[in-house]
Amino acid sequence: MGRWQPDSRGRLQEAALALYSERGFEATTAAQIADRAGLTERTFFRLFADKREVLFGGSAALGDAIVGAVAGAPPDLGPLDAVAAGLDAAAAMLGEFRRDLSRQRQAVIAATPELQERELTKLSTFAAAVAAALRERGVSELKATLAAEAGMTVLRVAMQRWAGADHGPDLTSIMRESVAELRALSDAG
Amino acid sequence: MGRWQPDSRGRLQEAALALYSERGFEATTAAQIADRAGLTERTFFRLFADKREVLFGGSAALGDAIVGAVAGAPPDLGPLDAVAAGLDAAAAMLGEFRRDLSRQRQAVIAATPELQERELTKLSTFAAAVAAALRERGVSELKATLAAEAGMTVLRVAMQRWAGADHGPDLTSIMRESVAELRALSDAG
Repeated sequence: MGRWQPDSRGRLQEAALALYSERGFEATTAAQIADRAGLTERTFFRLFADKREVLFGGSAALGDAIVGAVAGAPPDLGPLDAVAAGLDAAAAMLGEFRRDLSRQRQAVIAATPELQERELTKLSTFAAAVAAALRERGVSELKATLAAEAGMTVLRVAMQRWAGADHGPDLTSIMRESVAELRALSDAG
Repeated sequence: MGRWQPDSRGRLQEAALALYSERGFEATTAAQIADRAGLTERTFFRLFADKREVLFGGSAALGDAIVGAVAGAPPDLGPLDAVAAGLDAAAAMLGEFRRDLSRQRQAVIAATPELQERELTKLSTFAAAVAAALRERGVSELKATLAAEAGMTVLRVAMQRWAGADHGPDLTSIMRESVAELRALSDAG
């Protein structure tokens, strides 16, 4: 846990994403990632539990940020507005990452069924936690579930749009525009 | 493919769900299912590719029914109304099943991570197909994705509510009420 840890972490993530893209997730080993990053395998396993954690390491903190913002939203906000507050928190956190690395991450996940299922399960876990936070706010079970799941869909599609191009609106803008589109779904086509 | 096939299929499904509930999905074999149903293992494998197909066998037909209804909805309907037409088609098909068996199926899936991931992937596949049908109708990509995913969430929660009790409103009513709740998400809480 020395002073080089943040840099080591970033170098390993970048090396891992490059190798996953080149060779596929399955065919890449922790030793190869460490080697590409100019670090030791020991350092890899000091910072990541396994190969998957390079892709999903920040999940718990992200989930906590979303749920915290939903729970802490002004009490007079409706369910979708409370979820929008959670999405703003997610955008603030995720928008710090490099777009090109986020794009690589998405491509690796899309190419690997095991990772796709893991990603879906992650979003499903977030949705359940957000729904629980909404019920705590007095929202009915059905509305809470619908708002939470719709919110996680917005998170996913906004991330894809944002990471899909190196320039363009920032993640917060894209997230808010996506929420506005969700609200407008009932309008005529 | 003799005249007893429909009955054999139903008996095997019922036996499988009972065994999955009692012993768990993993610990149950096709031979045990056939034995419980008073049929041969050969009959089981004539009707189902494997143990999982007992739970997911109707998926392709269900997906086709949903997508067909979305594509065939009157062209002036907005995206959410077109999705609602697809959900009506799903309710007509799924509402034919016995509620107690649907409830058992959901409990088995909820207890088995492998099956949960399969169920999420199934809904994700439906959502992608519905989004494609909406884009064909001229709906923007973002709106199409949001409407399709929200629709699949409605399908999931409506099925849970319907199967959760032996009596009460039919699946079509629950599905429509859930769509109405989705439309009302933007209202104050």
